[in-house]
Amino acid sequence: MNLPACVDLNADLGESFGAWTMGDDDAMLARVSSANIACGFHAGDPLVMRRTVRRALAGGVALGAHPSFPDLQGFGRRRMDLAPDELEAMLIYQIGALQALAAAEGGRVRHVKPHGALSNLACADEALADTVARAVRTLDRDLVLLAPACSALARAGERAGLAVAHEIFADRAYRPDGQLVPRRQPGAMIHGAEACRVHVLAMLEAGALIAIDGQRLPTPIDSICVHGDGPDAVAAADAIRAGLAAAGVAVRAF
Amino acid sequence: MNLPACVDLNADLGESFGAWTMGDDDAMLARVSSANIACGFHAGDPLVMRRTVRRALAGGVALGAHPSFPDLQGFGRRRMDLAPDELEAMLIYQIGALQALAAAEGGRVRHVKPHGALSNLACADEALADTVARAVRTLDRDLVLLAPACSALARAGERAGLAVAHEIFADRAYRPDGQLVPRRQPGAMIHGAEACRVHVLAMLEAGALIAIDGQRLPTPIDSICVHGDGPDAVAAADAIRAGLAAAGVAVRAF
Amino acid sequence: MNLPACVDLNADLGESFGAWTMGDDDAMLARVSSANIACGFHAGDPLVMRRTVRRALAGGVALGAHPSFPDLQGFGRRRMDLAPDELEAMLIYQIGALQALAAAEGGRVRHVKPHGALSNLACADEALADTVARAVRTLDRDLVLLAPACSALARAGERAGLAVAHEIFADRAYRPDGQLVPRRQPGAMIHGAEACRVHVLAMLEAGALIAIDGQRLPTPIDSICVHGDGPDAVAAADAIRAGLAAAGVAVRAF
Amino acid sequence: MNLPACVDLNADLGESFGAWTMGDDDAMLARVSSANIACGFHAGDPLVMRRTVRRALAGGVALGAHPSFPDLQGFGRRRMDLAPDELEAMLIYQIGALQALAAAEGGRVRHVKPHGALSNLACADEALADTVARAVRTLDRDLVLLAPACSALARAGERAGLAVAHEIFADRAYRPDGQLVPRRQPGAMIHGAEACRVHVLAMLEAGALIAIDGQRLPTPIDSICVHGDGPDAVAAADAIRAGLAAAGVAVRAF
Repeated sequence: MNLPACVDLNADLGESFGAWTMGDDDAMLARVSSANIACGFHAGDPLVMRRTVRRALAGGVALGAHPSFPDLQGFGRRRMDLAPDELEAMLIYQIGALQALAAAEGGRVRHVKPHGALSNLACADEALADTVARAVRTLDRDLVLLAPACSALARAGERAGLAVAHEIFADRAYRPDGQLVPRRQPGAMIHGAEACRVHVLAMLEAGALIAIDGQRLPTPIDSICVHGDGPDAVAAADAIRAGLAAAGVAVRAF
Repeated sequence: MNLPACVDLNADLGESFGAWTMGDDDAMLARVSSANIACGFHAGDPLVMRRTVRRALAGGVALGAHPSFPDLQGFGRRRMDLAPDELEAMLIYQIGALQALAAAEGGRVRHVKPHGALSNLACADEALADTVARAVRTLDRDLVLLAPACSALARAGERAGLAVAHEIFADRAYRPDGQLVPRRQPGAMIHGAEACRVHVLAMLEAGALIAIDGQRLPTPIDSICVHGDGPDAVAAADAIRAGLAAAGVAVRAF
Repeated sequence: MNLPACVDLNADLGESFGAWTMGDDDAMLARVSSANIACGFHAGDPLVMRRTVRRALAGGVALGAHPSFPDLQGFGRRRMDLAPDELEAMLIYQIGALQALAAAEGGRVRHVKPHGALSNLACADEALADTVARAVRTLDRDLVLLAPACSALARAGERAGLAVAHEIFADRAYRPDGQLVPRRQPGAMIHGAEACRVHVLAMLEAGALIAIDGQRLPTPIDSICVHGDGPDAVAAADAIRAGLAAAGVAVRAF
Repeated sequence: MNLPACVDLNADLGESFGAWTMGDDDAMLARVSSANIACGFHAGDPLVMRRTVRRALAGGVALGAHPSFPDLQGFGRRRMDLAPDELEAMLIYQIGALQALAAAEGGRVRHVKPHGALSNLACADEALADTVARAVRTLDRDLVLLAPACSALARAGERAGLAVAHEIFADRAYRPDGQLVPRRQPGAMIHGAEACRVHVLAMLEAGALIAIDGQRLPTPIDSICVHGDGPDAVAAADAIRAGLAAAGVAVRAF
């Protein structure tokens, strides 16, 4: 056993929009150490963003930008083909908007984590990953790139000279190549708070992704991603926190 | 005659969107000292914004944010009723997005000038003007508020402790209370480059707005607003520059 | 006592959007006789619209279009100033989109009921009300205009030669002039399913709106509007249905 | 020589949006027999749509819907991955909106032609083509599908039992498989009005697509697509009309 002294817990938050609510942000903010805040392109409007920043700061939760493809109706989950210069400008736009709302509340954006289809594509496509990393670095070299462990995105961040925080997913199974098992395939999701806890602890102890076939892919693990919405979000976060506490691992922002 | 040594010349730029072009930004950037850059809510997309920033910086033109109501189809010209906290968050969002694109190009946003219906309403409505000024101050006290001379918006900026640059319009007539003559009324527009030049020089010499009935409203004049689009935009800018040069007034960003 | 043999029960439905859900449409469709279906401008996307049409048809619920100002983020609740010809085109666009989705499911749009700020404004502003009525009539003279009883909108519909269905609100108090008490004023809302039932039955028996001060404004009452979302929506609909049944009034589409 | 007695000439029109103008629709409406009218998802707003319908009807030009992926900023030119049921609902929504605006002007939508990336993908992807054809047939079996000659989309329309009008492009080169040469490849575009005329007449005479390597793919040719915007649009349309007239071929809607 080789557990770290502490690890970050992150969730996607601020995904309400106008009259529509998503997730229980207050409950999650009491449980995570990092918030990935939607920036208006797939969810979040300026008022939702500001309120989420305010609540995160009040709870001592670190602020991250969660930029997306421009796709409100599809919640950023649809693949879109954007020219690199256009995507780069869109990412800078979104991160900057959140930086300003953070500054207005006396806070600071510490990290960037791409959302949805953008993230999925950037985890497998080196050129797209480089575009994402370049956007972050061009805007502010001090921003941390929060990226899935063993992904093209994490590698691109390191190539770009950015600080990279490597995350694992509490409720998703991995393929032997380190990619997530696609949601439509059997076994893609880890169901239940207890199973999530076991999955997370096993990977932390191994210092590796553990693929669906048992293979291990060694990786630093800086953060654990838990879902911010869904009926089990709060229960899963609680189970993971309890498991970490029992194992002597503190929850702390990277 | 009491002409200033220099004055700023500003225009609304970066108002293309996606496949649609508006105005001749390159021609205007060669003529103005300050650019008010659309921030995506009434015009401008992230790529247009970044390109406009780049060109402005290359031309030594000072950067300003030109935020708007969220109304792409109406080009920000329609009155909307927004709650103060929502409007404030929208303004911070837009200015921050431009700040980030400016930073990515090695530049800095120096001023903020509200667009269209937002500006018109804020020039007459003290509460709305205070919301605008508060948004700017909350984000960054060093931003200059570029506001119509003698307007509620200029007064709100001063109340908020912001640096305020007072602008006059080259092609619009004024009412005796200092408001613009609404576009639909006869005499609202000053037609022709030569008439614009005369109008501007007269106000600069008077150190006052000159209303349609001849009344004078004394005011500091820091900037002259010229239109960025329309068939006469470039000609009007040239005529005003020639008039200023002949009068010994330099064009320089405030 | 002078109760009608039957009355319509209507609710605003199909107000989910993309990944966001609003209300419990299935529960409401089991209780109402008419559905006002959002058309994409304040809520509803094409897929939500089609599903709502399908479920309404399966439940024998009459289809209505619920067009709005173009304001997704504000849920159509913000006042906007639109030129009459632009508003007219927007209304025809929205109604036509729903007509097509209805046709694709083998159904037909029977009525039109404006949403939110558009409805509120059209209830008090004769010119705006005429624009709405003209849009409906221009598109299809057989569409019924579902309008608040005693409103400028109802009168405009009649002037335009449209069939008008007059509705009362189960959970809103009326001013002596027949307008709704604005939401921000005390007493605006009728709270609780039982109070809604009493309010509705009293007005049906009186054949009149009953204002907050007790005054009565005689009016035909063709439909009762119940809310489609909120924690009490289903309970209120049940209480009103029970009250109508006890009084011998059948629930039936107009 | 085996020229038809008449052929249709079509162009994409109504692609302005809000304050932005694209193309010279009046000039093109004087030259074409069919207009493909943008439906608000990539261009066109309800007011632009209605005006375009009105002008087309005044000029005796047949009305067609030109639906797109939902992508205003990308002008519908970006590939998007949409679920089939969502795309189908979006197509019905857009066509229905135009049908209503056409009805309001006393006209009728006669055909449907997909736009941009949607069209390009549907020309090569049988499943996507079937989705498009199904949307059209589900809405109205009397609508004609205007599809590129030799494309998967044309075949899908025929499979679905729709009337299909086969079009050739005046200014685009073809690959030996009948697909367009992608715009980024050399030789993709036929430059100049005269070259367009020659290209079109050669294909009409051959009763076949003529690929860039000289191969011929026999096909019915019902319509010729000319561009509605760009500096040469009007000149190309004039040259083709002159060429057709000289060859004794009348321009007439299919």
